[in-house]
Amino acid sequence: MSMSGSPQSYENLTPSALLSPAATKVQAAAIDLFYIKGFRSTTVKEIMSACDLTAPAFYNHYPTKDALLFDIAQTTHDLCDQYLYRGLGVATGPAGRVWELTRAIAEFHAVHAKRARVTSEDFRALPPGELERIRERRRAVRKMFEHVISEGFESGDFDPPEIGGLRCARLLATSVTNMAIRISEWYSPALGLDPQQIGLFHADLAVRMMQATPAEASDGR
Amino acid sequence: MSMSGSPQSYENLTPSALLSPAATKVQAAAIDLFYIKGFRSTTVKEIMSACDLTAPAFYNHYPTKDALLFDIAQTTHDLCDQYLYRGLGVATGPAGRVWELTRAIAEFHAVHAKRARVTSEDFRALPPGELERIRERRRAVRKMFEHVISEGFESGDFDPPEIGGLRCARLLATSVTNMAIRISEWYSPALGLDPQQIGLFHADLAVRMMQATPAEASDGR
Repeated sequence: MSMSGSPQSYENLTPSALLSPAATKVQAAAIDLFYIKGFRSTTVKEIMSACDLTAPAFYNHYPTKDALLFDIAQTTHDLCDQYLYRGLGVATGPAGRVWELTRAIAEFHAVHAKRARVTSEDFRALPPGELERIRERRRAVRKMFEHVISEGFESGDFDPPEIGGLRCARLLATSVTNMAIRISEWYSPALGLDPQQIGLFHADLAVRMMQATPAEASDGR
Repeated sequence: MSMSGSPQSYENLTPSALLSPAATKVQAAAIDLFYIKGFRSTTVKEIMSACDLTAPAFYNHYPTKDALLFDIAQTTHDLCDQYLYRGLGVATGPAGRVWELTRAIAEFHAVHAKRARVTSEDFRALPPGELERIRERRRAVRKMFEHVISEGFESGDFDPPEIGGLRCARLLATSVTNMAIRISEWYSPALGLDPQQIGLFHADLAVRMMQATPAEASDGR
């Protein structure tokens, strides 16, 4: 399928491009600990000890452990958005856009599996204001998919399954993004598949879910 | 599409068909509390108080809170298996089997959303022996899908996306089951969609992911 052609690289999309060196180090140590022990069971002292820094040094960077979790979640969404925008930037046509967005979100959840999983599992522990801001960012991702899927309805490029006799861009967007979000639960380099392959595979699945024919999909690029 | 024809009913598949009245009541109260507060933060006293029973009465049913969680997870998988076996029992052909299995797992995760979500989020807190038994049951569900997808490869009915130049039944099974498992995170009757519609919609998506044409899919039933 011509859509699986020459994908651009996401290699320079790393947390260190978005954060100070100290914050990069603190976030990486915290993500490892939250992944193993959970956010609530991890202490500031353990995080700083894992960075070879003293516990008081933490407060030069973050006022509270909640603030660190919020920063981790924001950075996760900043990175994910960069993948999505880059994908959107190179795509044309509804099928091409669904393909590129799905490739981007799937590859992101394989490359940054641990960070994405910690964010998905722990963001509900945030205080109400911060919780709502992260929820809004998660909705915004779904809406980006919903928008390009609606485009494909209007252009006649897509013929997806209906629900209750209607086409539902929101439900299709939910299904595609949830399939991709779960990659962070099972992906490991030990599977012998690289994140780029995971991205291409899910992009092809998403286009099939929209019932865009390969010909239509190729036209879209 | 003829596959969305006259689906059988799952109405009598409820926890009370599998459990004593007391265990049904204790599980229901525990699921509500675990859903809101998490397994670790919920006490036996709170569970029993929610059932209008005394805390010591708990130990007539379960030796520990871990044993209750294990029983909840086992019951969840017993119910899910009944949906899956019933689906498999009425299906013929690889596309028909993928369609019925997906409909069954999707409908299950909408009907029993709270129970399924508590099981998915909390089973990792089980002691090692029980944890491994639940992991094995989760693998068995994926393998059921993997088996019918492999059948469709061999019969020539399916032409799914490849990964690294190969067709991978395991990865397709993972994608379909994960899409369905996530239904328990977002489904609510308030959406105005009933669980049966959710099941039919996802069944159609799964068949498209396998690139079984509607004609082949209909032949399969």
